[in-house]
Amino acid sequence: MAEEPKDSVRRGRGRRPAVEVREAVLEAAGAMLFESGLTGITFEKVAARAGASKMTLYKWWPSPGALAFEAYFGAVESTLAFADTGDVERDLTAQLHAFVGLLTDPRTGHVIAQLVGAAQSDTALAAALAEHYTHPRRLLAVERLTRAQALGQIHADVDPQVVVDQLWGACYHRLLLPDAALDAAFADALVRNLLRGIRS
Amino acid sequence: MAEEPKDSVRRGRGRRPAVEVREAVLEAAGAMLFESGLTGITFEKVAARAGASKMTLYKWWPSPGALAFEAYFGAVESTLAFADTGDVERDLTAQLHAFVGLLTDPRTGHVIAQLVGAAQSDTALAAALAEHYTHPRRLLAVERLTRAQALGQIHADVDPQVVVDQLWGACYHRLLLPDAALDAAFADALVRNLLRGIRS
Repeated sequence: MAEEPKDSVRRGRGRRPAVEVREAVLEAAGAMLFESGLTGITFEKVAARAGASKMTLYKWWPSPGALAFEAYFGAVESTLAFADTGDVERDLTAQLHAFVGLLTDPRTGHVIAQLVGAAQSDTALAAALAEHYTHPRRLLAVERLTRAQALGQIHADVDPQVVVDQLWGACYHRLLLPDAALDAAFADALVRNLLRGIRS
Repeated sequence: MAEEPKDSVRRGRGRRPAVEVREAVLEAAGAMLFESGLTGITFEKVAARAGASKMTLYKWWPSPGALAFEAYFGAVESTLAFADTGDVERDLTAQLHAFVGLLTDPRTGHVIAQLVGAAQSDTALAAALAEHYTHPRRLLAVERLTRAQALGQIHADVDPQVVVDQLWGACYHRLLLPDAALDAAFADALVRNLLRGIRS
């Protein structure tokens, strides 16, 4: 059994502020997630790596899955940020290129597929995925689309929520039910089809 | 242990033609899939229920997962058939209503989510999903879209494969990463956005 790391915070470097501990825990969980996947994430292992108390983790996260999703969300947030050049087609395309890059990176792509997959038969994990990943990611995309809509670049009667499924959801489809290439050309086609319409 | 059902075919009703046995096996596997999910599918249990030899199942399917996907595909095929009234918007909408109905039916929706989820960390299952479900389903949709394209209803430079991800893939997104309603109104919006375009 590994030594209980409960006291290492105080012993090693004095008591750290909670916000720093939280950050260290999320960083450790993110790194471990990319190294060994979801099954590698336990409160005990993450606490040991972050030099934090296991009890603290139990207090802050309802489950290792919830911690894993929050760590994943934090790790990919900057990669998936939206530019706002005023050109909605260019901005969506650039963001989708970054997203496709993440989904096809052999490290991150497999992890997110595994996380989503595991959530399908684990209700606690599904709740954590929705709260700490799906919902906040969706909000960021809806915000960017709503801004374009306010500027009159997107029809007023279009529901931005549906657009999210037709851009990012389409990418998840090629990740989770793979049968066609998930690449930058695909991202370009998604934006083009949707903005211009496919009807002759 | 259950009695080995190897001889029941001959004993009970004489030797059935292979095509009938195959059909009985797929029917049994489909019913068991909806009753107890993917974990309920073993060659032994399906063979017993279909009155077939377990060895036959081993010969015909590389794994219980492959059998499960073929059974699922067969079970939903007629529900998901494409009409061809000549009106591509109406036909796509009708088909997507049926698809959304399947994904939101408490019996079938959970099963498909489970199947896709399990495939994310099981390469044999992933191969079976791709071969016996994803690829043939995609082909049927691409055929219908290509017909519309040939009639000049869809732009010649649109890749029907991408359209599949923006209609059916968008529905899978709301099933697998749920955060917004998966219903007929959503299906309508998917078709409308894509056919007409969302740009002002």
